[in-house]
Amino acid sequence: MSKVSKRSFASDNNAGVHPRVMEAITAANDGHVIAYGDDPYTARAVERFREHLGKDAEVFFVFGGTGANVLGLKSMTQSHHAIICAETAHINVDECGAPEKFTGCKLLPVTTSDGKITVDHIKPLLHEIGFEHHVQPRVVSISQATEMGTVYTQREMKALSTFAHDRGMLLHVDGARIANAAASLKVKLKAITKDAGADVLSFGGAKNGMMYGEAVVFFDKTLAHDFKYTRKQGTHLPSKMRYISAQFEALLTGNLWRRNAEHANGMAQQLARELERIPQIRITQKVEANGVFAVIPKKYIARLQKKYFFYVWNEQTSEVRLMTSFDTTEDDIKDFITLVRRTIT
Amino acid sequence: MSKVSKRSFASDNNAGVHPRVMEAITAANDGHVIAYGDDPYTARAVERFREHLGKDAEVFFVFGGTGANVLGLKSMTQSHHAIICAETAHINVDECGAPEKFTGCKLLPVTTSDGKITVDHIKPLLHEIGFEHHVQPRVVSISQATEMGTVYTQREMKALSTFAHDRGMLLHVDGARIANAAASLKVKLKAITKDAGADVLSFGGAKNGMMYGEAVVFFDKTLAHDFKYTRKQGTHLPSKMRYISAQFEALLTGNLWRRNAEHANGMAQQLARELERIPQIRITQKVEANGVFAVIPKKYIARLQKKYFFYVWNEQTSEVRLMTSFDTTEDDIKDFITLVRRTIT
Amino acid sequence: MSKVSKRSFASDNNAGVHPRVMEAITAANDGHVIAYGDDPYTARAVERFREHLGKDAEVFFVFGGTGANVLGLKSMTQSHHAIICAETAHINVDECGAPEKFTGCKLLPVTTSDGKITVDHIKPLLHEIGFEHHVQPRVVSISQATEMGTVYTQREMKALSTFAHDRGMLLHVDGARIANAAASLKVKLKAITKDAGADVLSFGGAKNGMMYGEAVVFFDKTLAHDFKYTRKQGTHLPSKMRYISAQFEALLTGNLWRRNAEHANGMAQQLARELERIPQIRITQKVEANGVFAVIPKKYIARLQKKYFFYVWNEQTSEVRLMTSFDTTEDDIKDFITLVRRTIT
Amino acid sequence: MSKVSKRSFASDNNAGVHPRVMEAITAANDGHVIAYGDDPYTARAVERFREHLGKDAEVFFVFGGTGANVLGLKSMTQSHHAIICAETAHINVDECGAPEKFTGCKLLPVTTSDGKITVDHIKPLLHEIGFEHHVQPRVVSISQATEMGTVYTQREMKALSTFAHDRGMLLHVDGARIANAAASLKVKLKAITKDAGADVLSFGGAKNGMMYGEAVVFFDKTLAHDFKYTRKQGTHLPSKMRYISAQFEALLTGNLWRRNAEHANGMAQQLARELERIPQIRITQKVEANGVFAVIPKKYIARLQKKYFFYVWNEQTSEVRLMTSFDTTEDDIKDFITLVRRTIT
Repeated sequence: MSKVSKRSFASDNNAGVHPRVMEAITAANDGHVIAYGDDPYTARAVERFREHLGKDAEVFFVFGGTGANVLGLKSMTQSHHAIICAETAHINVDECGAPEKFTGCKLLPVTTSDGKITVDHIKPLLHEIGFEHHVQPRVVSISQATEMGTVYTQREMKALSTFAHDRGMLLHVDGARIANAAASLKVKLKAITKDAGADVLSFGGAKNGMMYGEAVVFFDKTLAHDFKYTRKQGTHLPSKMRYISAQFEALLTGNLWRRNAEHANGMAQQLARELERIPQIRITQKVEANGVFAVIPKKYIARLQKKYFFYVWNEQTSEVRLMTSFDTTEDDIKDFITLVRRTIT
Repeated sequence: MSKVSKRSFASDNNAGVHPRVMEAITAANDGHVIAYGDDPYTARAVERFREHLGKDAEVFFVFGGTGANVLGLKSMTQSHHAIICAETAHINVDECGAPEKFTGCKLLPVTTSDGKITVDHIKPLLHEIGFEHHVQPRVVSISQATEMGTVYTQREMKALSTFAHDRGMLLHVDGARIANAAASLKVKLKAITKDAGADVLSFGGAKNGMMYGEAVVFFDKTLAHDFKYTRKQGTHLPSKMRYISAQFEALLTGNLWRRNAEHANGMAQQLARELERIPQIRITQKVEANGVFAVIPKKYIARLQKKYFFYVWNEQTSEVRLMTSFDTTEDDIKDFITLVRRTIT
Repeated sequence: MSKVSKRSFASDNNAGVHPRVMEAITAANDGHVIAYGDDPYTARAVERFREHLGKDAEVFFVFGGTGANVLGLKSMTQSHHAIICAETAHINVDECGAPEKFTGCKLLPVTTSDGKITVDHIKPLLHEIGFEHHVQPRVVSISQATEMGTVYTQREMKALSTFAHDRGMLLHVDGARIANAAASLKVKLKAITKDAGADVLSFGGAKNGMMYGEAVVFFDKTLAHDFKYTRKQGTHLPSKMRYISAQFEALLTGNLWRRNAEHANGMAQQLARELERIPQIRITQKVEANGVFAVIPKKYIARLQKKYFFYVWNEQTSEVRLMTSFDTTEDDIKDFITLVRRTIT
Repeated sequence: MSKVSKRSFASDNNAGVHPRVMEAITAANDGHVIAYGDDPYTARAVERFREHLGKDAEVFFVFGGTGANVLGLKSMTQSHHAIICAETAHINVDECGAPEKFTGCKLLPVTTSDGKITVDHIKPLLHEIGFEHHVQPRVVSISQATEMGTVYTQREMKALSTFAHDRGMLLHVDGARIANAAASLKVKLKAITKDAGADVLSFGGAKNGMMYGEAVVFFDKTLAHDFKYTRKQGTHLPSKMRYISAQFEALLTGNLWRRNAEHANGMAQQLARELERIPQIRITQKVEANGVFAVIPKKYIARLQKKYFFYVWNEQTSEVRLMTSFDTTEDDIKDFITLVRRTIT
């Protein structure tokens, strides 16, 4: 229950709500507005999104990230299609089969070393195009930043989207941590979404300091055509929409989204640097966003978890995942490193 | 967009968040807790639910009401089952086919005069039991209070649940307005849920003053067995669960839920009384919860809506629906009645 | 088990296989051909279909009638769409919810007196177009001939298809007994399919003398685009396709389909005429195809069923359904009428 | 179209119908019987099945193999479950995603060298039991014989079923070629189904000389409880059931099934022996059933296919699949080998 009494490195979902986001929520609590999104908060939030992602972006708010992914994918597929993704993708291993259940599609996971798909991963999966006995690959879904704490460059994304588009396929981006990716690359959000050839994007709010709420963003308007029905039938049309909209407005104003992400990313860098200095510990992935993957000798893990909870990523290799968030402090890191040093040596 | 500049009678979803609920949200914004419900806020909120609904109740929080209904129904059915409901039921007409999509079941709607199903409505639907060409009725789903502003007595509910249970069927209660029903009947929540034979309940938060969040409550534990997976696969496992839990805790403490509902119900009574005095207007349903249904001459409707937005329920009969909420004031009613009188006469 | 020792009036599915169709099956049993439809039998059968239904018809064979309906409807809909049909439609009451399960759509049944939908039935269902809380009507599905033994004229069908097409909707025809309808109207198959504005047709084989096998026929090619995948994913791609194809070839050659249907229809006429002469019996529907609906006093029914099994259509009104088939003989009718007269009087 | 003018090695589905099976079909074409399986042919066929598979076996006939697999799996799972299978399994690569579409489950494919799963393949997939973010493994599905022409021993099957049952999991057997497996092992059908711990079996008819029709057999009666509805809703309840039943009766009488399978297996042995003598060709899998996998130098393949069509299994490695069937003759093999020798050398 109360495994976590203070800030931990367990998950960026364990953090609370950024104070400015909370202010926006309370400020929105003023009288009546039309439910289901026909309100001024939502209009303004969509406007903010279009400033960041292009004026033609179609933007729909939903309650959560799994919903955003699943509904976005539904709008891109027929049930006989296949969705290519990394074996480590959230849609493949952390959504309890929600994509299969709601879209009817098969997922075709590819094994990667760092959570990033390349064209070479996709090619071998395209050998039975037009053969009705096989599912037909239709979507390449990538996570940006990935579940392994790595980030696709714009060039890498463009290679994927070009390859996909040339074959009548589409690029889906699970952007639960899109802010961390843009902050890491020091680029605008548009550079790694619309300009990188994304067709549909799940834009994450919760991991960036929101209480709840994600956005499904369409860069290809034709795919958005029926999405209002898909969202409602998909049980993700919030009645009191304004409270999600107000949060997004706060996040997308004055670059709060970027500052939150930069801070989390910076803390991950710092954490990784400190861990690297401990000889018994080995960092296993590039630290490009807000996650640090490290091998820690098995015998110490339980003791560390007791004080600072985190998840073991791979039992066999004793690899753990440490996540930072917008509210991680330098003191948290110092404390944790002190604990690690004291435990290990 | 800004059709609503002040409190209207359009929907109880147009209201904001009750101040005490908002306080609970901000109070919960304190440091890190484990995501997905393994946190002290959720433990306490579940405890409150069990005080109200019985210590064996299994309680799961989800984002919204359509999700609560659909996932609850999924846990009660196989896809070849049928769900009997009133033609006016939210699950039948206001969820864009979400129950069919997610459960695979057919809904068997029955025509009622007041939104309330009786055993006599159900009997004719049970004639092909065991015949594989037909869907098999498995669930009777009622709305308490109904979409027509009426309320089932405990005795009426028990008649339904007994009839259902005697035939191996189950009773589902869409309790988006369960608080209004309990307040109307002046009974405890348990009296019209567990004690009335309900098997699964959608317990509504939003219409009672919450920002978002509903609960799926199981009185039959065996039905809850796999529900944690159903919730996750159904895209309704909130990551930052504590903020829903904190709201429910506020609502279920010191009977805030009842006071909110009593207030809304009382305002509906008052509104109906005032409308009844206007000769051109006819109240069409018993006013037992927080909704008032009335026939208003067609020619006046648009003019009234311009100032005080509300929905036309039936274009043909010129019947409108007026909803009150926890924050409706006597002044709102006076204002509105003044407007109506001035418009009509 | 052996309720039926001879020809009965229970169902046109109780009949066997027409001798000429059986010959075609045995003739096709010659060496190897490519499985799944890439064989000369299938090419020839499709050719026959195009002679009857137009050279642009896209034709796909499937195992059975429920499969044909469900897969055809899947190709016309997204899951948030609704399918309008008669309350008595096979897709509504005799397919155990298969359309809902596979398409995700809601069915909107309309009450008719004779199994036939008119534009006036449809209009009231179109009131919430564009409102995302409601399913969106997309398909009107009619049965031709209907389950009530009645037949749409070409004009009646055209009225429906024109109304539908004008609103971006489509016309689906469950033609399990399309042969009976064409024979009844003395028109070509094309007149009441393509020329009447049908978009997708289930073309029935089994009720017209085949062993198994139905065809899904597309008059709108764009709807057929992905159907080969829908058929395979829908588990209805027969491996040894040639045996279905050979049956269809037999049926569609030398107008065997029409002779079978004319015979069955004629027998129904004769049966109805004889029954009408019995004062205690009342024919309840026009006899336009191969079904006779009649009210027979309740007390006699069980005794009649013992010798000549048939189904009670409506327990309350004591209405029964009597079906004739391609192999019904005048002697069958004489025998049955003798039995009825002896039993009743 | 007419790629195949004589017997080929393309697929055991390219063969026709065994003469004794065809006789049974024509013999069944006698008068009327009740549709949908309530007929004496079906009763007798089920009796035959119980003689072979145990008197408690629950047997349901369906149209085809993909249907049998998908509906069987549906009866064993909830949508949040996972189905473990070999990467090469028919359910994984040859059914266009039908299992995912109809069950909602995720398939977890494991890489094998010979199409056979072992307990060691399964273990790594069981690490997140009880964790709601992940699909929950529920079924191990094996193909017996496998798609690679190999056969599980009873002991190997028992190891899998015991492992599964000990963990609350179930064993599904895709027995499209179960006859070939039993013939190969020289055991009774019961030995490698019920006695090996299978819970649900797809019993193949088409590849053993039938025209169409497969059986779903339940050894665990509780799983069969609702299957009649699943079959109907799954669009696989044949109306004129007797013609499937008559075929199965023929197959299961006088061990026709075994003779057909033994013949096909023997022909595969002979074909493999002859191919092995050609130095440029390498047999890649044990030949235990009716399939031969061989690497043939790429440059010869197209020329061989022109005369004797067969499928390339793996473009990269130039591995081809050659299938024999109940009607393959020694002359077919001689002819083919002569062609190969003439082409290659």
